[in-house]
Amino acid sequence: MIVATERAMRPTDFKVEAPAVEAPFCTFCEGNASRTPPETFAVRPTGTAPDAPGWEVRVVPNKYPVLKEGSRGKKGVGIYDRMNGIGAHEVVVETPEHMTSFTPLPDSHVAKVVAAYQSRLRALKRDERMVYGMVFKNVGRAAGASLEHTHSQIIVTPVVPRTVMQEMEGCRRFYDYRGRCLFCDMAEQEEEEERLVMDRGGFLAFCPYASRFPFETWILPKRHSSHFEAISPEDVGEFAHVLKAVLARIERAIENGPYNFIIHTSPFNVGEIEHYHWHVEIIPRLTRVAGFEWGTGFYINPLAPERAAEFLREAEVPEESAP
Amino acid sequence: MIVATERAMRPTDFKVEAPAVEAPFCTFCEGNASRTPPETFAVRPTGTAPDAPGWEVRVVPNKYPVLKEGSRGKKGVGIYDRMNGIGAHEVVVETPEHMTSFTPLPDSHVAKVVAAYQSRLRALKRDERMVYGMVFKNVGRAAGASLEHTHSQIIVTPVVPRTVMQEMEGCRRFYDYRGRCLFCDMAEQEEEEERLVMDRGGFLAFCPYASRFPFETWILPKRHSSHFEAISPEDVGEFAHVLKAVLARIERAIENGPYNFIIHTSPFNVGEIEHYHWHVEIIPRLTRVAGFEWGTGFYINPLAPERAAEFLREAEVPEESAP
Repeated sequence: MIVATERAMRPTDFKVEAPAVEAPFCTFCEGNASRTPPETFAVRPTGTAPDAPGWEVRVVPNKYPVLKEGSRGKKGVGIYDRMNGIGAHEVVVETPEHMTSFTPLPDSHVAKVVAAYQSRLRALKRDERMVYGMVFKNVGRAAGASLEHTHSQIIVTPVVPRTVMQEMEGCRRFYDYRGRCLFCDMAEQEEEEERLVMDRGGFLAFCPYASRFPFETWILPKRHSSHFEAISPEDVGEFAHVLKAVLARIERAIENGPYNFIIHTSPFNVGEIEHYHWHVEIIPRLTRVAGFEWGTGFYINPLAPERAAEFLREAEVPEESAP
Repeated sequence: MIVATERAMRPTDFKVEAPAVEAPFCTFCEGNASRTPPETFAVRPTGTAPDAPGWEVRVVPNKYPVLKEGSRGKKGVGIYDRMNGIGAHEVVVETPEHMTSFTPLPDSHVAKVVAAYQSRLRALKRDERMVYGMVFKNVGRAAGASLEHTHSQIIVTPVVPRTVMQEMEGCRRFYDYRGRCLFCDMAEQEEEEERLVMDRGGFLAFCPYASRFPFETWILPKRHSSHFEAISPEDVGEFAHVLKAVLARIERAIENGPYNFIIHTSPFNVGEIEHYHWHVEIIPRLTRVAGFEWGTGFYINPLAPERAAEFLREAEVPEESAP
C-alpha cells in the first residue's frame, strides 16, 4: 500500500463520502495554468512561453501526487519491508478546450496525446532509480476521476508494480513452454474470432476471451513489440486512430459511463524482450466488485465478450477518418 | 472470468446502471420462505418443518447463483482453457428479523451464524469435485449487496481461486525461507503494535501494516490453524465475539458505510498445513479503485493503519459482553 501524505485524511473524513464539488472554473482549461504546477512538456507553437496559452497538449506534475521526489530509503520494520514513496506522477491534459473525452478530436490531435505519453516516459526513464512507467486514464467518478476535463496520467515507480509482475511472469511461463509470445498467439487467434472489434493497420481491438467486465476491450499491436514508448511515429498514428475509434464505440455503448484504460508495457530496465507484448486494456466500470471478486480474483461478467464485440462493431459512431 | 447465465444481460442493459429497487417486502424476512429456494440448513426448534417460521439462522441456495451443479467439462478453446461454472452458491440469512447488520444481536446468536458457515462448508466439501469454500459478506450497495437484510454468502469452487492461490504461494515461500508461518509471525508482532484493535481470548484484530483501504482490519486466531471449518465450538464462540465487536466499531467509524468481509481459509483437499493460517479480512469500501490501482495492484490509502486502529479502539460502541 502507498500512504500518500499529500492525500492524508483524518479518520473522521471518511464518515460521509465527499460529493463531487465542481469547481467554478476548470484548472485544466487554457488560461488557468497558474493553478497547476509548471508544465514538464507541451505541444505548443514555437515562440510561446511555457505555461502560456496556445498549447494543444500539456503535461504537468500532479498537484496531489501519489509518489514524489526523494530517496528510496528501503528498510525493514519487523517482518515488513518499507520504502519511501518516490517516483513521478504527471497529468496529461489532452486539450485546452473543456471537453470530457478526446474522442471528438481529430486523429492527428489524439496522435499528439499519444506522442506526449511517449516523450514523458522516455524522459522519466532517464532517472535510473525508476524501473516502470504506466499510462492510464480514469473517466467518470466511479472510475476514480476527480476532474472531468479530459486528461490521462503517468506514474513512474522504482519497483515493477505487482500486477505487471504477475502478468509478465505468466507470459514468461507461456514463452518458456511454447517458445512464443502469448499476446502474439492471442492476436493470431482473435483476428479470426467473433470477439474482434476492429482490425486496422498494425492494430487489433477485441473483447478478450473470458473478459472480466462488460465491454472490456484490449488493443494490441499485431507485430511483436515489448515497449510502448519505443514505437515509431507511424505506429503512433495508427494506434491513436484505433484507440480513438474504439473509445468512441465504448462511450456510445455505455452512454458515457465510467471507464479506465491502462497501457501495459515492459519495464524500463529491460531491453526489447520476446515474451511480453505491450497493449492497452480498456475497462468499463459498470459492475461492482464485491466480496466474491475481492476474495477469489474471479470476476462475474453478465455479458459474454462475443456479444459485447458484436455490439461495439455495430455501434453507430461519427464517420471515422481513414487511418 | 465467470459467465453467469442466470445473470446474463443484453448489451443494452448496461446503458444506465439499474437503480436499487427496494422490493415491497423482504425475501429474507421470516414468513417469506416461499420466495427463496428450499433451505439447506437452519437453526430452528426441533419439530418445526424446513422452510417454516421459527428459525434463527437459515441457509438457502442463491436464487441467482454464480456457480451451479453440473459436470466440469474442461476443454481447450484455441489457446484458452474453459470449464463449466460448477460449484455451490448459498446465502446465510443471519436473522429472521429485518435488520441491516448482525452487530446488534447477542454474541450467542452471532456464534450460531458462524457455526452455520462451518456446517455448510463441512457438508459441501463432501463433494470431491469441490476444492475450495469461501465465506464472504457484502454490506451496502457500493460493496455489492443487492438486499439489505443482513446476510452472508458461501461459494464453493472446483478450483482454488486465483487470489487464494497467490496468497498461499507467498506464505509457502515465507515458510520455506524462515520455517515459520507468516501469519503466526504477524500475530506475534501485531500483539505489541499500535495497529492492534482488539486482543481477546484466542483472537487478535488489527489494521494490517500497509493496509490497502481505510479501516481495513484483519482478525486472526493467535494459535496456528489452517482451516476455519475445523475450529472448535469454543473457538467459534470467541471468534464470533471478536467479529461482532470489531464490525460494530467499523460500522461506527464509517457510519454504516459499505464494507466486505472475507474468510480466507485453506483448500478442502489439503489436511492441516503449517504454512497457511485462516483469517478474516474486513474491507471498508470508502475509496475508489481507479486506473492506478487496477494497473499496478498498489492501493492508495489516505489513512495510516496506526491512526485507523486508534480510532477503532476508541470508537464508542454499546457495552460488549464478556467473551
